[in-house]
Amino acid sequence: KQTVCIFGTGDFGRSLGQKMMQCGYSIVFGSRNPQNSKMIPQGATVLSHVEAAETSDIIIVAINRLYYDFLERLKETLHGKVLVDISNNPKMNQYPEANAEYLARLLPESKVVKAFNTVSAWALQSGALDASRQVFVCGNDSKSKERVMDIVRSLGLTPLDKGSLLAAKEIEDYPLQLFPMWKYSIYMSLGLSIVLFIYCIIREVVYNSVVNNKDYSFFIIIRIPNRICPVVALILLALVYLPGIFAAVLQLYRGTKYRRFPDWLDKWMLCRKQLGLVALAYAFVHVLYTLVIPLRYYVTWKRNSYVLQQAFNNKTDPFDTVNGWISDSYLAMGILGFSLFVLLGITSLPSVSNSVNWREFRFVQSYLGYLTLVLCTAHTLLYGGKRFLLASYPWGLPAVYIFSLIIPCIVLVMKFILIFPCLDRPLTAIRQGWE
Amino acid sequence: KQTVCIFGTGDFGRSLGQKMMQCGYSIVFGSRNPQNSKMIPQGATVLSHVEAAETSDIIIVAINRLYYDFLERLKETLHGKVLVDISNNPKMNQYPEANAEYLARLLPESKVVKAFNTVSAWALQSGALDASRQVFVCGNDSKSKERVMDIVRSLGLTPLDKGSLLAAKEIEDYPLQLFPMWKYSIYMSLGLSIVLFIYCIIREVVYNSVVNNKDYSFFIIIRIPNRICPVVALILLALVYLPGIFAAVLQLYRGTKYRRFPDWLDKWMLCRKQLGLVALAYAFVHVLYTLVIPLRYYVTWKRNSYVLQQAFNNKTDPFDTVNGWISDSYLAMGILGFSLFVLLGITSLPSVSNSVNWREFRFVQSYLGYLTLVLCTAHTLLYGGKRFLLASYPWGLPAVYIFSLIIPCIVLVMKFILIFPCLDRPLTAIRQGWE
Amino acid sequence: KQTVCIFGTGDFGRSLGQKMMQCGYSIVFGSRNPQNSKMIPQGATVLSHVEAAETSDIIIVAINRLYYDFLERLKETLHGKVLVDISNNPKMNQYPEANAEYLARLLPESKVVKAFNTVSAWALQSGALDASRQVFVCGNDSKSKERVMDIVRSLGLTPLDKGSLLAAKEIEDYPLQLFPMWKYSIYMSLGLSIVLFIYCIIREVVYNSVVNNKDYSFFIIIRIPNRICPVVALILLALVYLPGIFAAVLQLYRGTKYRRFPDWLDKWMLCRKQLGLVALAYAFVHVLYTLVIPLRYYVTWKRNSYVLQQAFNNKTDPFDTVNGWISDSYLAMGILGFSLFVLLGITSLPSVSNSVNWREFRFVQSYLGYLTLVLCTAHTLLYGGKRFLLASYPWGLPAVYIFSLIIPCIVLVMKFILIFPCLDRPLTAIRQGWE
Ligand SMILES: Cc1cc2nc3c(=O)[nH]c(=O)nc-3n(C[C@H](O)[C@H](O)[C@H](O)COP(=O)(O)OP(=O)(O)OC[C@H]3O[C@@H](n4cnc5c(N)ncnc54)[C@H](O)[C@@H]3O)c2cc1C
Ligand SMILES: Cc1cc2nc3c(=O)[nH]c(=O)nc-3n(C[C@H](O)[C@H](O)[C@H](O)COP(=O)(O)OP(=O)(O)OC[C@H]3O[C@@H](n4cnc5c(N)ncnc54)[C@H](O)[C@@H]3O)c2cc1C
Ligand SMILES: Cc1cc2nc3c(=O)[nH]c(=O)nc-3n(C[C@H](O)[C@H](O)[C@H](O)COP(=O)(O)OP(=O)(O)OC[C@H]3O[C@@H](n4cnc5c(N)ncnc54)[C@H](O)[C@@H]3O)c2cc1C
Ligand SMILES: NC(=O)c1ccc[n+]([C@@H]2O[C@H](COP(=O)([O-])OP(=O)(O)OC[C@H]3O[C@@H](n4cnc5c(N)ncnc54)[C@H](OP(=O)(O)O)[C@@H]3O)[C@@H](O)[C@H]2O)c1
Ligand SMILES: NC(=O)c1ccc[n+]([C@@H]2O[C@H](COP(=O)([O-])OP(=O)(O)OC[C@H]3O[C@@H](n4cnc5c(N)ncnc54)[C@H](OP(=O)(O)O)[C@@H]3O)[C@@H](O)[C@H]2O)c1
Ligand SMILES: NC(=O)c1ccc[n+]([C@@H]2O[C@H](COP(=O)([O-])OP(=O)(O)OC[C@H]3O[C@@H](n4cnc5c(N)ncnc54)[C@H](OP(=O)(O)O)[C@@H]3O)[C@@H](O)[C@H]2O)c1
Ligand SMILES: CCCCCCCCCCCCCCCC(=O)OC[C@H](COP(=O)(O)O)OC(=O)CCCCCCCCCCCCCCC
Ligand SMILES: CCCCCCCCCCCCCCCC(=O)OC[C@H](COP(=O)(O)O)OC(=O)CCCCCCCCCCCCCCC
Ligand SMILES: CCCCCCCCCCCCCCCC(=O)OC[C@H](COP(=O)(O)O)OC(=O)CCCCCCCCCCCCCCC
Ligand code: HEM
Ligand code: HEM
Ligand code: HEM
Repeated sequence: KQTVCIFGTGDFGRSLGQKMMQCGYSIVFGSRNPQNSKMIPQGATVLSHVEAAETSDIIIVAINRLYYDFLERLKETLHGKVLVDISNNPKMNQYPEANAEYLARLLPESKVVKAFNTVSAWALQSGALDASRQVFVCGNDSKSKERVMDIVRSLGLTPLDKGSLLAAKEIEDYPLQLFPMWKYSIYMSLGLSIVLFIYCIIREVVYNSVVNNKDYSFFIIIRIPNRICPVVALILLALVYLPGIFAAVLQLYRGTKYRRFPDWLDKWMLCRKQLGLVALAYAFVHVLYTLVIPLRYYVTWKRNSYVLQQAFNNKTDPFDTVNGWISDSYLAMGILGFSLFVLLGITSLPSVSNSVNWREFRFVQSYLGYLTLVLCTAHTLLYGGKRFLLASYPWGLPAVYIFSLIIPCIVLVMKFILIFPCLDRPLTAIRQGWE
Repeated sequence: KQTVCIFGTGDFGRSLGQKMMQCGYSIVFGSRNPQNSKMIPQGATVLSHVEAAETSDIIIVAINRLYYDFLERLKETLHGKVLVDISNNPKMNQYPEANAEYLARLLPESKVVKAFNTVSAWALQSGALDASRQVFVCGNDSKSKERVMDIVRSLGLTPLDKGSLLAAKEIEDYPLQLFPMWKYSIYMSLGLSIVLFIYCIIREVVYNSVVNNKDYSFFIIIRIPNRICPVVALILLALVYLPGIFAAVLQLYRGTKYRRFPDWLDKWMLCRKQLGLVALAYAFVHVLYTLVIPLRYYVTWKRNSYVLQQAFNNKTDPFDTVNGWISDSYLAMGILGFSLFVLLGITSLPSVSNSVNWREFRFVQSYLGYLTLVLCTAHTLLYGGKRFLLASYPWGLPAVYIFSLIIPCIVLVMKFILIFPCLDRPLTAIRQGWE
Repeated sequence: KQTVCIFGTGDFGRSLGQKMMQCGYSIVFGSRNPQNSKMIPQGATVLSHVEAAETSDIIIVAINRLYYDFLERLKETLHGKVLVDISNNPKMNQYPEANAEYLARLLPESKVVKAFNTVSAWALQSGALDASRQVFVCGNDSKSKERVMDIVRSLGLTPLDKGSLLAAKEIEDYPLQLFPMWKYSIYMSLGLSIVLFIYCIIREVVYNSVVNNKDYSFFIIIRIPNRICPVVALILLALVYLPGIFAAVLQLYRGTKYRRFPDWLDKWMLCRKQLGLVALAYAFVHVLYTLVIPLRYYVTWKRNSYVLQQAFNNKTDPFDTVNGWISDSYLAMGILGFSLFVLLGITSLPSVSNSVNWREFRFVQSYLGYLTLVLCTAHTLLYGGKRFLLASYPWGLPAVYIFSLIIPCIVLVMKFILIFPCLDRPLTAIRQGWE
């Protein structure tokens, strides 16, 4: 049984110690007052720091960074030993250097390894390790790192080597992040939603209230959101495929791919996944809103009065085949588009995307993705249908779906141009690395 | 090429042998009658047990536990060698000690490692390893364990170190389990469903049949299930967040988090994930049941007769704006609640929860989870709407949705109280380990 | 810091070099013209091939297979060193032997390891490693393989040992594959769809146009697809469970499971997962098509004229309880069937199927799978309902759902026979390996 020493009998130290003992390690705690330590997991020993450190050559420092300075006094004892830094900070960039680097500076003769900081004490205790099975490890000494990674593995967690201690900063920032990659997409979509919402309220609620003197305020609950959601979804979907077009044009123009894209393009390309998934969420809500249409009181009431009107006038409106075609077509396009959208979503799941190869992933994400865009655009165009022409715009304001069509149409036209052999062939050559 | 010996030419032995040969091992089988062994994978050798054991220092014992005693005779040959126990039992707790411990007792000089018992022979043969890529490994000698884990890895499987041989019992029980964590949630939901079902039948079918002499027996197919599903979903969803409230109150009262929760609370907290997912399944069925409402013959018939009645009476019911508001609002709440519910479900997928950090996971599960609960409760409250007041209860029995609101409202009120700074601050302090 | 040498300063060599430097390796490139190499990642050295090879005993050969012959001249320098072959071919089976085998033949004294070929240069650069975290590794020397796998791991990728160099062919083919396992299922479903589509067009569009002189051409957009999708889904679902029946009959007949199934059965059994998922996709589209029915212009028009007709005739069609029962029942069966279908889909996700044990997986896939089949068949039978008997077939052509019922009914009847103890007991015995 391997003996490991843990400094600090706080929450994290105890939780980790207990877990390690369950996995067959023998644990010695180092504490300021070994006598008074309570709640130590059964079977563990508590000694003073020096005594504890002597029992093992791996020491896990489960102490707040604030108090690291006392370790300097143990310099000799810790000489050549592996020190595992598990600390986090309450805020990002609180200190100029990473905690682990600070520790390495304090104790240059010890081998500092950063690990375990992403694991929560409570999760260790309760076994609910849902969000923290990945343990990032870094350190300058690869032997020590390997030993720590073995411990990680034997606790049923997944170590991920992040290289030298330079990575410590990034690792310490990781548990403080809140969906950094999703930021742009979410702000973008919220911004768009708000602008469109105000526009629609003016166009449908205020207009009707002022001009027709009708109270359609309840439109803000379902009808207007059901204009905004699909419009935002379509715009975001087009924004997923727009940077690829820019990239292609730029590469064609430059004649090489070995020059970096401008910064904004790079960032944009890296958040396409998130843009796409946010678009999917909006589309999902659109679909649900649409499917409850026949359940809405307003809709049934309107349908009923339409029928009653015909009954009172003693006439039946004849069936219009063109309407039949258009209505069925736009619904079918929407359904097929949405199904492919869901398929794109499913292949983004990490476990699915990990089990397809690169060619398959691009087949789904690029080919089927464009097909999705085509179908969704066709859905909107057909929905617009005759309305495009004969619409009388309230206060001259066009319907929102007309705005939503601009970017998708640009993307599709550009892509259409780019697949002509005279442009596609040089582009392919460039992307394969020829210059 | 490393040589590995397998005792037993049965189903499992052969399948494993074949797979290992494909992965570059050289295999020697040990059998009772080496001459008569048929169906041995091509390229493998079959010898007597003693001869086979001499060719390798890893011996995989692919023999039923019942016959282990014959191994005692090979004590000398097996001295110091690694014995891999792969056996399972037909029932849990069939023997007082684990098979691997029994083997270790029989052959104290050998190094027994438990492994491979979760893999099925058929899966090994056919490559359909869907449910058994994880191989739990345990053993007292860590070198031997490491060697076995290397074999596991080279077969494309994932070894998971479970510590010392004490874990063998648990590992042997694993393949016999059938969703142990789901038990409570499923019993709970089924129990609730049955009780509510009977209640609704009495309230809607029996009552109408007895009092109004109407045959509404077909309500048991969709209408009553579509009352029960959402009610159970809502109750279960509230039960997911109730234990967190209890825990908070208890911790505040005790002033420390370093005392174990009562057993029932601990168990409850650990099956919240399952409770939540079962609730999601019920909500999913509710949504589908709801969306087919306009397709039901009964509903269209009723709508038609309502219109016809107006036509015959020559009057049109006027539009009621309040109804328009309420109807749209409760549908919108339901849709948003359900969308967030699905989001919670998606983040529970192991591959997704593994790639978010703890803070992000709790943001989704705790914050968005409460938002889900708020939206679903609001949905039900608004659905109840005016009905609350003017309802005349058949036989004095209130509608089921009224029951469903009790627990969610308690949870939300308590949570509302707990987020006041005067309670939240000490609670946060306690949870960060201060006493 | 370990030094690794990379031959070739092309796209892949540079990308890999840069990534490895980020992970703490020190990189030396070997190039034909070391002076002229541009775009080398900062911090790397470029030397001639011979000089570079001397700095490290791992050499990554990032050069097209076409030019491997020049390596023969470096035979001495490369003696005993690890050569990592990362090459791909533009087409499958372009060369008779795998590139790595060819390299090993050229340099028999070096230890050739195949790796990294599944990773794309662009993904390495941009970090978008979605589809290529798995790195297949093979080689005849296990020490070298282990060293390469360590490098793979330290780059944050997952190595998968595929055994000896014989596996190189398979590994080189992998990135060229496009869903090979899905081929049969997709062809099958497309073929079925086309045949049924033509049949339905004749039966509904052409017939109505010729005989009734009505233009129902717009049926091809939603109504006919909504017949074909569920029919194909049901047939595919039955085809998932049919081979299991065949297998059982064959095993019973032969009295042993130790004889290989005929080839077609084997293949069929291995693509059941894909068949099932394609069926799910079709069912998904069916459900969406069905849920938009009340939104279709044709449907609302037809409903309205039905009501108006009653209004003009001054009579109300009475409520038919049997219809109420049947309509609710078939919808409920469909909903429950579809919910279980989705559950089967969820448990097929790699990350979910990896975290259940074999018994649980089979419980869902086999028991709940059959339940799904029963529910979907019942859904179709009930939908057919009275129509079965009183239908007058246009041109004598029966409705498609009648065809769709044949295979499911056969499967269910056979399964029903097979679960009788007199057959089930010997079958179980056979499958447990008794003869
Ligand atoms: C619902 C949904 C989910 C999504 N999930 C994901 C996801 O999980 N992961 C993800 O990455 N995206 C995801 N996306 C975004 C999008 O589908 C992909 O980024 C898609 O691959 C973009 O296709 P494209 O044809 O525009 O890009 P591409 O044409 O493939 O790429 C454009 C640019 O990428 C570079 N590039 C690509 N391949 C190469 C190469 N071989 N060599 C050199 N340069 C190359 C080039 O610079 C090129 O100009 C998702 C989108 C949606 C709607
Ligand atoms: C569809 C759905 C899916 C779900 N999937 C999952 C899932 O995959 N995994 C999962 O775990 N749950 C899942 N849940 C359950 C639920 O969402 C979570 O358990 C959620 O975190 C509970 O939030 P809470 O605010 O009540 O709990 P919290 O307030 O987070 O926790 C309550 C108690 O937990 C303990 N605790 C939590 N954090 C700490 C800490 N840092 N230090 C000390 N003690 C702490 C404390 O004892 C505290 O009193 C799911 C629920 C639903 C509806
Ligand atoms: C939506 C959907 C998703 C699906 N996803 C998957 C998936 O992810 N993975 C997957 O594999 N299938 C999947 N399937 C296919 C299907 O559900 C399974 O293959 C299912 O297990 C078949 O059940 P069965 O009862 O017919 O087969 P079984 O009766 O289990 O097997 C039939 C034959 O399999 C062999 N066999 C099975 N178990 C043993 C054993 N212990 N010993 C010896 N021989 C044995 C025997 O030869 C037997 O005759 C999916 C299906 C659907 C509809
Ligand atoms: N809690 C978590 O979920 C979690 C997760 C990841 C990382 N971490 C990190 O783990 C570290 C400890 O966290 P914690 O939650 O365990 O904190 P804690 O409960 O406050 O415990 C800290 C321990 O450090 C020791 N200590 C305190 N002051 C000291 C001093 N002046 N000199 C020497 N030792 C002192 C004490 O142990 P003795 O009384 O025995 O000396 C104390 O129990 C922090 O750096 C934190 O970022 C925590
Ligand atoms: N089958 C599975 O899917 C599976 C999965 C996981 C674990 N296991 C475990 O693997 C073990 C073997 O299972 P199996 O399915 O392979 O069983 P099996 O087909 O019945 O084979 C058992 C083998 O053990 C040998 N044997 C039988 N009686 C013996 C005796 N009295 N003395 C010595 N050897 C004897 C025989 O080999 P010789 O004739 O060559 O001596 C026989 O072929 C069991 O413990 C089982 O729990 C099986
Ligand atoms: N690109 C990818 O995404 C990717 C992915 C997986 C595998 N691969 C494989 O990696 C290999 C290289 O691909 P690549 O995209 O890097 O190709 P590349 O950009 O064309 O680069 C190939 C390099 O090989 C060297 N070279 C060319 N001709 C040579 C000759 N006659 N003799 C010696 N060296 C020669 C050159 O380097 P010097 O001028 O420095 O000598 C050249 O830069 C291929 O086998 C490919 O299958 C590529
Ligand atoms: C209001 C919300 C509505 C939700 C509706 C579903 C839309 C999907 C939105 C995806 C949100 C993912 C959050 C992931 C958190 C995260 O950071 O996750 C991070 C991970 C890991 O990313 P990396 O691989 O980049 O590290 O990313 C993901 O896992 C992406 C998950 C994609 C999930 C798509 C699943 C689609 C399934 C279809 C369901 C809908 C069916 C509808 C039928 C009618
Ligand atoms: C009648 C069934 C109806 C099904 C409807 C879907 C509801 C989801 C029910 C979840 C069931 C999961 C079984 C997992 C088996 C298991 O033990 O799985 C065990 C695993 C592993 O758990 P551990 O991490 O605890 O080991 O748990 C899971 O993987 C949870 C999977 C959650 C899946 C949720 C996915 C939601 C996606 C949205 C689909 C619906 C979209 C609808 C749009 C209209
Ligand atoms: C037109 C498309 C419609 C899409 C609708 C969803 C149907 C699901 C179709 C699955 C397609 C998976 C492609 C995977 C690519 C691949 O090769 O993937 C390969 C992987 C790995 O396979 P191996 O384990 O065999 O290597 O296989 C999978 O991951 C299977 C994924 C199954 C996903 C099912 C998810 C169901 C969730 C429910 C969503 C619908 C909810 C609806 C509510 C109303
Ligand atoms: C199941 C799939 C879908 C169905 C059934 C569907 C149905 C509908 C319906 C009925 C409308 C008219 C709404 C109204 O009258 O107010 C509509 C509008 C629209 N849909 Fe869809 N849709 C689907 C999917 C999608 C998808 C995936 C997108 C794009 C991402 C999309 C984009 C739009 C747009 C932009 C509009 C116009 C909104 C407006 O201005 O009113 N739809 N859809
Ligand atoms: C897409 C989302 C949803 C829609 C469209 C929706 C719609 C409806 C409708 C139309 C009803 C009335 C049913 C009837 O008249 O019989 C209803 C009732 C109800 N819903 Fe939902 N709902 C949704 C999601 C949810 C969710 C997620 C929950 C909670 C978990 C929920 C809980 C309830 C409850 C408790 C009732 C009352 C049941 C009764 O007693 O009749 N709903 N919903
Ligand atoms: C939410 C679930 C489901 C609902 C609401 C539903 C509803 C319906 C409806 C309304 C029809 C009649 C369509 C028409 O009149 O043209 C139908 C037909 C049918 N459904 Fe479903 N269904 C569901 C799921 C399924 C599933 C999972 C399957 C099988 C895999 C299936 C198989 C069929 C078949 C074979 C037909 C007959 C098609 C025809 O010939 O018209 N359904 N379903």
